[in-house]
Amino acid sequence: MTLSEKYKTTRKRTEDICSPLETEDYVVQPIADVSPPKWHIGHTTWFFETFILKTHYKGYQEYDSEYNYVFNSYYETVGTRVIRTDRGNLSRPTVRSIYLYRKYVNEAMFKLMECECSKEVEELIELGLNHEEQHQELLYTDIKYILGNNPLFPAYKKDVFPKKETTSERSFITVDEGIYEIGYNGTDFCFDNELGRHKVYLDEFRISRNLVTNGEYMLFIEAGGYRDFRFWHAEGWDWVNKNDVKCPMYWHYINDKWCHYTFQGLQPVDEDETLNHISFYEAAAFAAWKEVRLPTEFEWEVACNEFAWGSRWEWTESAYLPYPGFKKAAGAIGEYNGKFMVNQKVLRGASEVTSPGHSRPTYRNFFHPHLRWQYTGIRLAQ
Amino acid sequence: MTLSEKYKTTRKRTEDICSPLETEDYVVQPIADVSPPKWHIGHTTWFFETFILKTHYKGYQEYDSEYNYVFNSYYETVGTRVIRTDRGNLSRPTVRSIYLYRKYVNEAMFKLMECECSKEVEELIELGLNHEEQHQELLYTDIKYILGNNPLFPAYKKDVFPKKETTSERSFITVDEGIYEIGYNGTDFCFDNELGRHKVYLDEFRISRNLVTNGEYMLFIEAGGYRDFRFWHAEGWDWVNKNDVKCPMYWHYINDKWCHYTFQGLQPVDEDETLNHISFYEAAAFAAWKEVRLPTEFEWEVACNEFAWGSRWEWTESAYLPYPGFKKAAGAIGEYNGKFMVNQKVLRGASEVTSPGHSRPTYRNFFHPHLRWQYTGIRLAQ
Amino acid sequence: MTLSEKYKTTRKRTEDICSPLETEDYVVQPIADVSPPKWHIGHTTWFFETFILKTHYKGYQEYDSEYNYVFNSYYETVGTRVIRTDRGNLSRPTVRSIYLYRKYVNEAMFKLMECECSKEVEELIELGLNHEEQHQELLYTDIKYILGNNPLFPAYKKDVFPKKETTSERSFITVDEGIYEIGYNGTDFCFDNELGRHKVYLDEFRISRNLVTNGEYMLFIEAGGYRDFRFWHAEGWDWVNKNDVKCPMYWHYINDKWCHYTFQGLQPVDEDETLNHISFYEAAAFAAWKEVRLPTEFEWEVACNEFAWGSRWEWTESAYLPYPGFKKAAGAIGEYNGKFMVNQKVLRGASEVTSPGHSRPTYRNFFHPHLRWQYTGIRLAQ
Amino acid sequence: MTLSEKYKTTRKRTEDICSPLETEDYVVQPIADVSPPKWHIGHTTWFFETFILKTHYKGYQEYDSEYNYVFNSYYETVGTRVIRTDRGNLSRPTVRSIYLYRKYVNEAMFKLMECECSKEVEELIELGLNHEEQHQELLYTDIKYILGNNPLFPAYKKDVFPKKETTSERSFITVDEGIYEIGYNGTDFCFDNELGRHKVYLDEFRISRNLVTNGEYMLFIEAGGYRDFRFWHAEGWDWVNKNDVKCPMYWHYINDKWCHYTFQGLQPVDEDETLNHISFYEAAAFAAWKEVRLPTEFEWEVACNEFAWGSRWEWTESAYLPYPGFKKAAGAIGEYNGKFMVNQKVLRGASEVTSPGHSRPTYRNFFHPHLRWQYTGIRLAQ
Repeated sequence: MTLSEKYKTTRKRTEDICSPLETEDYVVQPIADVSPPKWHIGHTTWFFETFILKTHYKGYQEYDSEYNYVFNSYYETVGTRVIRTDRGNLSRPTVRSIYLYRKYVNEAMFKLMECECSKEVEELIELGLNHEEQHQELLYTDIKYILGNNPLFPAYKKDVFPKKETTSERSFITVDEGIYEIGYNGTDFCFDNELGRHKVYLDEFRISRNLVTNGEYMLFIEAGGYRDFRFWHAEGWDWVNKNDVKCPMYWHYINDKWCHYTFQGLQPVDEDETLNHISFYEAAAFAAWKEVRLPTEFEWEVACNEFAWGSRWEWTESAYLPYPGFKKAAGAIGEYNGKFMVNQKVLRGASEVTSPGHSRPTYRNFFHPHLRWQYTGIRLAQ
Repeated sequence: MTLSEKYKTTRKRTEDICSPLETEDYVVQPIADVSPPKWHIGHTTWFFETFILKTHYKGYQEYDSEYNYVFNSYYETVGTRVIRTDRGNLSRPTVRSIYLYRKYVNEAMFKLMECECSKEVEELIELGLNHEEQHQELLYTDIKYILGNNPLFPAYKKDVFPKKETTSERSFITVDEGIYEIGYNGTDFCFDNELGRHKVYLDEFRISRNLVTNGEYMLFIEAGGYRDFRFWHAEGWDWVNKNDVKCPMYWHYINDKWCHYTFQGLQPVDEDETLNHISFYEAAAFAAWKEVRLPTEFEWEVACNEFAWGSRWEWTESAYLPYPGFKKAAGAIGEYNGKFMVNQKVLRGASEVTSPGHSRPTYRNFFHPHLRWQYTGIRLAQ
Repeated sequence: MTLSEKYKTTRKRTEDICSPLETEDYVVQPIADVSPPKWHIGHTTWFFETFILKTHYKGYQEYDSEYNYVFNSYYETVGTRVIRTDRGNLSRPTVRSIYLYRKYVNEAMFKLMECECSKEVEELIELGLNHEEQHQELLYTDIKYILGNNPLFPAYKKDVFPKKETTSERSFITVDEGIYEIGYNGTDFCFDNELGRHKVYLDEFRISRNLVTNGEYMLFIEAGGYRDFRFWHAEGWDWVNKNDVKCPMYWHYINDKWCHYTFQGLQPVDEDETLNHISFYEAAAFAAWKEVRLPTEFEWEVACNEFAWGSRWEWTESAYLPYPGFKKAAGAIGEYNGKFMVNQKVLRGASEVTSPGHSRPTYRNFFHPHLRWQYTGIRLAQ
Repeated sequence: MTLSEKYKTTRKRTEDICSPLETEDYVVQPIADVSPPKWHIGHTTWFFETFILKTHYKGYQEYDSEYNYVFNSYYETVGTRVIRTDRGNLSRPTVRSIYLYRKYVNEAMFKLMECECSKEVEELIELGLNHEEQHQELLYTDIKYILGNNPLFPAYKKDVFPKKETTSERSFITVDEGIYEIGYNGTDFCFDNELGRHKVYLDEFRISRNLVTNGEYMLFIEAGGYRDFRFWHAEGWDWVNKNDVKCPMYWHYINDKWCHYTFQGLQPVDEDETLNHISFYEAAAFAAWKEVRLPTEFEWEVACNEFAWGSRWEWTESAYLPYPGFKKAAGAIGEYNGKFMVNQKVLRGASEVTSPGHSRPTYRNFFHPHLRWQYTGIRLAQ
């Protein structure tokens, strides 16, 4: 696939994800972590305009100078941003205006790609498309949050993401102690946080072949797991009590049965399905209750060829930290990853809403330990 | 005009107010006090459905039982309401669905009004229309807030509400001391808070013929009024400092000139225009700086035939309290006014966004002293 | 009594109130409204130093220039104050140092009073002593809060404030409609907020001879009064729910019986005792449940010679507002009352912890409607 | 030294640390992280009573059953604790009562130690003394906070902790890549978080012989380090802006010169002294500005024999996580460390207020990245 084809496919996929939405669904921001879909549509476009067109396309005419202010996210280098929690207050630009902006930038991008691009520009486009794929996943999780917290529980689309059954028979892989190499060493695109391939020494460990199921987690709930501080980190216990947490996100106990919101609307929870939408605190408490633990990101990377992965992001015990020799790029692009390397946990794997081909064994996803609106599950280790 | 014609006219006016809006403008709620326009559209409809159709129209089929949950405001009697600050998170029901709901309820109402209505039903319809007129005013002020706090400062409509010039030459009316009658004593509609016509004894007082202008208020700003605690109530001074208040709402100091957001977009402030969008704290501080005071609501009511009023709501010194003999109606309708009678200030008059014929000399508007998004101005007294 | 004797008696009484305290009790500030006793000791001293000695006693040597910063309360004119909520963080000056400061200022004051004082100085001393009496009452209520919220429930003193029994047989006084004079017109000391004697017109009203008892209030609790929104102001209802209020302050339901913290420690609630420590919201809800109302401050003042008062402050329906012609004094003294005239309710009467002779029929006490740590009760009216 | 002598020495040292305090200094809690000294005195005593006397000393009579409620800290197993932020509201038990409690428990402990103790009891006493040493350090840092945030800036004691000069000439040690053993492997006391001695693979690295000085840090301030987001983690940047941070804790810019609060009172900052009282965010930003980095805790442990350490705790890049095979003890003692292993950073070394002999090369101290009231400094690595 040429870069131009790749650009076209990727950009179109974003719009396809939004196609079942009503205009109103594009606008709201129920919590700070969730962005309005229209903001994602604009922000991914702004990325190409700001980092490629405005600096590498001679004669490019900026679409609207106000948009930099509205669609910037956390790039401090490029001006005052809209405070994240304020995004849901912005009725303008309208959805239609943002799609026009998108069309304008796409046309300029296609013209730019018709010519021979420098390696630097090609790499920036590659980064922009990977950035867009990350926002595609966020679009799914943010849309789910917006619709799943509406009292009408509207379905997103009836025929997406069929249930994934799994087994609750636990089977462990054993990995020998020794020195292993960690980090990306291919030649394709990867993020800067995967670089700095380096050696780690691992003790012998065992890691589960399958993820924890809803049924297993129900046993934890029934055993009073949410009411017994012994299984929890101190901060996790505070989080449980302060937010009165009693079950995974989107679960509701209705008429003596667990239901959960899905893209098809409210559905009974299937015990054989893989558990989803839990915080790191819940993952760690469940493991403690089982008297096992979560794997480190290094264990996961070393063992991942031995098990199936990709249906859920998997919380690891590892904190999100720089690899040895980590260097951030100059300028705004350098703000991409490094500045988040404190107080977050690494997740490995991918989920059903991850864009196809976006993840890989060395991919490092990261979120704060209390967050649950991503597709997060548990793999156990010993 | 028949009741049915009045119903039609009033209900249509609400839709006319919204006609310049984009779909996205209907959805957002930038602060708790401002409601999304689509909520106003649904709530005023819900009022007729809940208090008239469901209880007085035999065989009426409720449109959607979930809507009671979504469109209730503060009527505790009729079920769990949507917490006010959550309204801006609701993308559904869509604007189109709400207009369908509106159409459905209107048709049922017209059918109901075709028959002879009982006096009780007629009075409820009258109340519903006055309630709708109050929301018409809120629609204007909420729309202004939504657009006026958008970084693009979009105009609502180019040709509405032309500027009202006034004069800054102060001229006072003197009213003799004596016993005066206060409260509504006509036979047309009025709110329960106006009833209980009663005598008050007033000392001699003087009250200004005209409202304070922007130009007069600029002098207060220039004199350092916002930085001198002596003019402020203690709570007002805290409010100024906590919120870093330096000018009326919607004012911006750009290139050495005061501009303000209006329905026509950002405009220079006209010194001869009536001052607007100030809190009670600012009104009282300005009066203290002038070494005069605000009138009480009784003074205002007694004197109001001697001056022009209606271009701005006017803060009074009076707290919003029940008149002697005040009785609240039974049931949900009884929650209309009485339960707000603490910690609020009375405003008298009307504004350019008040529905025609909605106000009268005995009308008691009320808001918390720090609020500014209504059309609020200052009349001085001595 | 000479002014000097009066000074001595009043100042000593403050120290007597604190004599049962441990040093530690002088230091803490469990909530913003409660001040540490050592701050009261210092602040009342600072008042005499600042407003009398430093300005009217030639050659007076300021005790410690830092103390102005520490002991100022809300007098904006005399420098940056310690933010009120920070008072409980200050371990220094120590209690002993503050008593030394007190001694130093007292000696200077006695020297000053040996000479002929100007009328202005005499009035300032009078004001200072009345100010001190107000802090004596606050000392009692703040000490009660500090000890009554300690898990050990320590007694303050075994033999103070014996229980006041009353009767729950309601008997009403009827007062005719007419014009009445309100406000102070004597020649002794009064506060500026009582001045501006003026006429008010009152409709005929009935007012209860006795205050509401604990037993009557228990019936309100048992009838579900705290769970029925119909009796409450909207803000009161929010306050109840947000703070999970279920009974008056200091009440605890222990082994199926109501107890309350008193200066003698934890005691059973006596049904025949006068109700105490309730908010305006609770007072108004109780009255609504009884289908009567609270009196206005004018009704109270007109009728108060017909009933016994002084065992409890009594919430009135009246907002705390300036009387006609209210003028605040120049300078810091002018900050005494006027700047609090918004969002507060008037209380009339006096309580068992009010300093002897401090209150009078025209005295206007005022607090925010949610506060309960003062000795507040209910008198009903119709 | 016998265990009994060790007990006596350690317990006495706690009281010596408090001996310069006024009673009032024992009581206050200016921020949630700082505990009142009297609480430390009681809590360390409660530890011996709860975990040793009540369970291992037959016939022991509990001193006061309320004290468990008051002096528990975060041990969920042993009853409802006083919410941490409420500690500063407790005037009772008094300081004197707590010292009596301390005496009572000490006497019982001495009697217990007269007999042959089981190994389990000996280990618990050892743990209790190490726990007490940790609180000795907290006593110093909490006292410093209490006095250093008092507007009078009182000195703690004139002749403690003389300034430690150092050099700003940077000199680096190089350590070869390879496998290193990490964790405690001696036979003396250590905490459970140091156990699980294990291998780690380290790349070659360089680590500074000396800590960063005040003078070096002033250059960072002067270069605008606090105003340039590029040096900061995103959360650090939010922390700087939200708290308006411009310099290390206790620093004040007075008359064009940097001063800081010390145990001797307010003093000029000495450029040659080791930098102190900075957050992890500041440490990381300073390192980024120098284009180097902080060491990991493993690098520090491997290299620490090559440089002097002990005058300041040193922030590392490492998150506080369990070592391989980490197991928490059963019961309340098991809550000691493991439950804090999320969102905290490891500090290595010791400080001038660390109890003598308390730290060691494998010791893992840990705090949240924004905290500064501990004695925290910077060692650079590459």
